[in-house]
Amino acid sequence: MPTSAPAPTHTSVGIIGAGPAGLLLARLLHNAGIDCVVLENRDRAYVEQRQRAGILEQSTVDVLRSAGAGERMDREGLPHDGIELRYDRRSHRIDFPSLTGGRRVMVYAQTEMVKDLVAQQLADGAPLFFESEVTRIEGVEGVEDADGTKGIHGTKAPTPTIHYHHQDRGPTTLTCDYIAGCDGFHGVARNAVPAGLRRTYERTYPYSWLGILAQAPPAYDELIYAHSSRGFALASMRSPAVSRLYLQVPNGTDPADWPDARVWDELDARLATDADPGWKLERGPIAATSVLPMRSRVVEPMRYGRLLLAGDAAHIVPPTGAKGLNLAVADVVVLARALVQRHVTGSTELLDAYSDTCLRRVWRAEHFSYAMTELLHADPAHSAFETRLQLSQLDRIAHSRHAAAELAENYTGLPIALPSP
Amino acid sequence: MPTSAPAPTHTSVGIIGAGPAGLLLARLLHNAGIDCVVLENRDRAYVEQRQRAGILEQSTVDVLRSAGAGERMDREGLPHDGIELRYDRRSHRIDFPSLTGGRRVMVYAQTEMVKDLVAQQLADGAPLFFESEVTRIEGVEGVEDADGTKGIHGTKAPTPTIHYHHQDRGPTTLTCDYIAGCDGFHGVARNAVPAGLRRTYERTYPYSWLGILAQAPPAYDELIYAHSSRGFALASMRSPAVSRLYLQVPNGTDPADWPDARVWDELDARLATDADPGWKLERGPIAATSVLPMRSRVVEPMRYGRLLLAGDAAHIVPPTGAKGLNLAVADVVVLARALVQRHVTGSTELLDAYSDTCLRRVWRAEHFSYAMTELLHADPAHSAFETRLQLSQLDRIAHSRHAAAELAENYTGLPIALPSP
Repeated sequence: MPTSAPAPTHTSVGIIGAGPAGLLLARLLHNAGIDCVVLENRDRAYVEQRQRAGILEQSTVDVLRSAGAGERMDREGLPHDGIELRYDRRSHRIDFPSLTGGRRVMVYAQTEMVKDLVAQQLADGAPLFFESEVTRIEGVEGVEDADGTKGIHGTKAPTPTIHYHHQDRGPTTLTCDYIAGCDGFHGVARNAVPAGLRRTYERTYPYSWLGILAQAPPAYDELIYAHSSRGFALASMRSPAVSRLYLQVPNGTDPADWPDARVWDELDARLATDADPGWKLERGPIAATSVLPMRSRVVEPMRYGRLLLAGDAAHIVPPTGAKGLNLAVADVVVLARALVQRHVTGSTELLDAYSDTCLRRVWRAEHFSYAMTELLHADPAHSAFETRLQLSQLDRIAHSRHAAAELAENYTGLPIALPSP
Repeated sequence: MPTSAPAPTHTSVGIIGAGPAGLLLARLLHNAGIDCVVLENRDRAYVEQRQRAGILEQSTVDVLRSAGAGERMDREGLPHDGIELRYDRRSHRIDFPSLTGGRRVMVYAQTEMVKDLVAQQLADGAPLFFESEVTRIEGVEGVEDADGTKGIHGTKAPTPTIHYHHQDRGPTTLTCDYIAGCDGFHGVARNAVPAGLRRTYERTYPYSWLGILAQAPPAYDELIYAHSSRGFALASMRSPAVSRLYLQVPNGTDPADWPDARVWDELDARLATDADPGWKLERGPIAATSVLPMRSRVVEPMRYGRLLLAGDAAHIVPPTGAKGLNLAVADVVVLARALVQRHVTGSTELLDAYSDTCLRRVWRAEHFSYAMTELLHADPAHSAFETRLQLSQLDRIAHSRHAAAELAENYTGLPIALPSP
């Protein structure tokens, strides 16, 4: 069992968190011959079962393939060439390839991607320790001089060290050259950046999503984003047999107030369109109902000394627009390139640029996620004027190639590294 | 003197208001051989001197030319092929023709356009009465049956009648086939629509503009829209010798608190760019300082019986994006076409569609004006997160052809009649 394998005492890159960011980073580093250790405080079953995102951007698909982690995705994933917008009882399709020069997205659940990456990591015999709770990080504040020697102005830098509690071995210490904080919104890595250096930007929204996973074939070929006076609805899917559906609900909603019949009725009402008056969702057993908060958040910088934050540890987007997982993938691609450059050439140029490089794309995705959220939801604080502006903008997207392409480019994903100003 | 000419007692179209909407409508109807009377409650000097907008969309320029009212505009106006965005001490130019297939705008003050139209109206001997205050409108509620006869279900419809007070003649009555309410935000025509049928959509903004008119040559070739942590600034112009400049200020600002030196210093600070560190505005005598409120407003419908509202009487936009005057022009073009159809063929098809046709374009412009306003101003209620979103979107416009084209298309003006849903 990998979890009982002897624990290394040193590694090049200590990775905290076995979500998509940490696992993909481990894969990219492993492929480049850089050793790393992944520490995850949950157990494997939990990590492989938690319901998260399910839409992979074109560049995420490309990264998984080139990392050798795309085989099952290509076999079981569902390529999508567009989405449907419903508003004012009308339907309008956004065709991605014709608007973006051939880009599309892939429906493949994050849980499946995680399973694939866990299996590969363990098959390679690469260190991945579940139920290993990180208790403290220290020594990350040192940076390297331009000539590659550690230390600032001749002073020897401290050694980055992760203290963690392993379920079998108890308190354990791992020294590293670099530490990657991939431990998500609730993670501890971020706290190793001194509070005085951290800038947090945040916004909460006056609504949440009620999400259900249903054993029912989707009654639609592509995702449907619906603006309705009753509130936003999203018809998504995880597979040809499993529907993933969302309803905007007030903050503080108790899922118990939403018995199955009410969920289906409300979805049908919000998704109704005059383009297909008899259209209804296929109903089926609802496996899980949960309420998802909506939040925007960015923590800057994403690098402090030899600690590098990636994914949800540094930034959160509301789920409208499906950017969260894809941002995490982009972060670790930038990070892997930087660590490989450091490993191969000794140069820290890309590492020094890591935070700025990622943050350009992060802020772009933050804006897009915010704008999609504001465009589609019924905000209780909004006046009728603002509702009419939403409808005007949806009409513009339906009639203007530039407005539609702006949505399609952002949705299918921008280049990993955006141009600097 | 035209104001002492005998007053007609009946006309085809009674036009209330001699702003750009009313005057241009009179010109278009005159050109089509339809008689009309224009009533304006202010005197001629006031109408010809009030400072208003100064940016004409491509389609406004085209309309003025084809109406035979573009001669001086073409001689003295300044064609502009773009605008400059300044943000984060950077400069980025939006090139209109390359983004829109050749469209551009014309800098020509609304006051000049009004002078041209007044002179033409009087030269033609067409009725235009200043200092004629409309006191009451009645009889507009009748509509026409499909066969062109007046009345609803055989009942004779009342006659649309304007009661007004002329400075010399005193109380006067004018009966009309149709009444055009072009009397602006503070006008009375709108009130002839029963309150129960009127829907008003409105938004105010937590800031105003301080506007100055300066006898100083613009230190820039094109308009500069500046995002700054100090607040928005706009460098515009009225002619090669006259600068028109604006500063975002708090609501309730007293212009007396802004002596000339403070205005110039603040403009220089907000417009500063690292692209040209020594750049400063040319200073000169400030002729007028005023505070402009920022407001969005739409009143629906724009038609009630035989009363048709156009321009500011029906809708207001904040000045960011320069849509107000251009929307008024688009309204009266749609209205003139409809009245000509009615006159020539007897059909009321275009009149019946008037409100919906105009409102599609109105709501598009309302969204654009709102979005430009929100993108560029420092909102006191905004968090640092929202400020970063503004900068992210400005960066997107600077780097994405689609985002830039979306701005350029809206700015240079959309077709007079937008496609129906």
